[in-house]
Amino acid sequence: MTKLYAGIDLGGTTIGGVLGDADGKIVAEANIPTESYAGPMAVLERIAALVQQLSAKANASVAGVGIGCPGLVDVQRGITRFFPNLPTQWRDVPAAEVLTQRLNCPVSLLNDVRTATLGELVFGHGRSVQTLAFFSLGTGVGGGLVIDGRLRLGPLGAAGELGHQTIVPNGPLCGCGNRGCLEALASGPAITAEGTRLMLAGQAPELHKIVGGNPALVTTRTIAEAARAGDTGAQEAINRAVEYLGIGIANVVTCIHPQLIVLGGGVAEMGDLLLVPLRKSLPQRVGMFPPSDVCIEQSLLGVRAGSLGAIALAVRGTSNI
Amino acid sequence: MTKLYAGIDLGGTTIGGVLGDADGKIVAEANIPTESYAGPMAVLERIAALVQQLSAKANASVAGVGIGCPGLVDVQRGITRFFPNLPTQWRDVPAAEVLTQRLNCPVSLLNDVRTATLGELVFGHGRSVQTLAFFSLGTGVGGGLVIDGRLRLGPLGAAGELGHQTIVPNGPLCGCGNRGCLEALASGPAITAEGTRLMLAGQAPELHKIVGGNPALVTTRTIAEAARAGDTGAQEAINRAVEYLGIGIANVVTCIHPQLIVLGGGVAEMGDLLLVPLRKSLPQRVGMFPPSDVCIEQSLLGVRAGSLGAIALAVRGTSNI
Repeated sequence: MTKLYAGIDLGGTTIGGVLGDADGKIVAEANIPTESYAGPMAVLERIAALVQQLSAKANASVAGVGIGCPGLVDVQRGITRFFPNLPTQWRDVPAAEVLTQRLNCPVSLLNDVRTATLGELVFGHGRSVQTLAFFSLGTGVGGGLVIDGRLRLGPLGAAGELGHQTIVPNGPLCGCGNRGCLEALASGPAITAEGTRLMLAGQAPELHKIVGGNPALVTTRTIAEAARAGDTGAQEAINRAVEYLGIGIANVVTCIHPQLIVLGGGVAEMGDLLLVPLRKSLPQRVGMFPPSDVCIEQSLLGVRAGSLGAIALAVRGTSNI
Repeated sequence: MTKLYAGIDLGGTTIGGVLGDADGKIVAEANIPTESYAGPMAVLERIAALVQQLSAKANASVAGVGIGCPGLVDVQRGITRFFPNLPTQWRDVPAAEVLTQRLNCPVSLLNDVRTATLGELVFGHGRSVQTLAFFSLGTGVGGGLVIDGRLRLGPLGAAGELGHQTIVPNGPLCGCGNRGCLEALASGPAITAEGTRLMLAGQAPELHKIVGGNPALVTTRTIAEAARAGDTGAQEAINRAVEYLGIGIANVVTCIHPQLIVLGGGVAEMGDLLLVPLRKSLPQRVGMFPPSDVCIEQSLLGVRAGSLGAIALAVRGTSNI
């Protein structure tokens, strides 16, 4: 019988769970609220119950669990380190051990964006390459690197934080405390803020029409819609983020020269509005060696990158990622 | 008898040669003019003659030759690709094959700064680490990365060009064609130009005294001398470069989280004038994870990094670097 693995995406508000095989074929899926205020042990118990629920749904046992976590973890020891967006303290929680005892199978932890990066490597565009960089463009900008077929984690599991490259010296304040990070310049909120500014300044008429002039309705989706309808202000808001993202991509290419850049997260759904100008700017920025061999692609996995990555994590275990 | 290897540093004006053992103990050394205008085959013949001269001097045979090259090479095939600073065409010269036949021993080619990076790994501060980034600060800013004990070369041998990260969007023009590269902001000429400007504007009195007001005598060395004597203008010229270099270092740390950053090249001889502020700025820039475990050091090897790296290259061969 085919072995099944549980992939868990632990978020601040929702825990996403899937059950699938080593080829990424999903046989069961469920989401539950995180209820993170109840603290780590209660959340771990909810994860265990979710895994059991998936297992019951598929009428099958679970061979292993992979969990994408919203922060830093000690990957090898399966201990949580720092979850900046969860309300309670998660420092040094031996989550893998607790869940292994509870579920009687191997449990592996990894940062959520590195987990999604693994998903891209194993099930996405990365299947045919050895070295790639993944940019997760959403409320924040996360990242992950695969070098020669292996995730680059570094001593704290924190390597690959591509959204916290400094792109503009003394630029806008980032949530991390630094200024001018890519995250502060090219995240969803950065694009939305710039689109809103241009709309309020009367320079984005199509966007104004789409949202009825209501700033609360300005999102990367409505900005993209306006841009596709020819709104130069909306296009400008996107292009500004693209210029910064292009620098962040070019810098990663200059450093490690990957074969592939993958864009994921909600903002990446803009598709060609990002890809076309990014593909044009890369050879201009990386002047030393025309990197015609570096592809820039939108994620094939979309919102599934994290949970599919968690399945890949469960299959491979932390010593083989 | 101890095997001896030749390490060659091919420069635009000088070919440096050393003969040494696998432990980096140098037994013979000689430099000759490159006479690069005579073309690739004549230069290769000069390299062969230099190796034979070193061999005769030490009265010993040569077990292998490593050559640090001023540009891009096809590392695995030993073919030169693009030497931007040499006057004649070096595209697709099978240098390793030509020299192997001439000298009857294995010959390996590698970019010169990646060769120096290998030197730092094998014989310098890098001996005790697995992952490091090397910044060569001179007329240009070169770089190299070692990840998990291996040089990161990429498909063109061009990965690790850390001096061509974009640090200031639309910043000053770089020799590579891009704008705002680290090289355009923190190289020797960048520091010298800023020191000269401040001197001519009357803001670097100590520097003015040291060089007698003569801009031709303003160098990173005289600027450092003035800074140590308390010249705030000279300090400013250095600090400005340090700020940009700090961003370049922080971005590499954010991406790959190395254990060690090594500064080499002539500008690195400024020592503490660079190291003290850089060590202070790194944790401020890399806010996500205080990287107290990342050391920033001045090269132990100095000008010898390239030739010692070439010996390491000869010892290891291109398949094991």
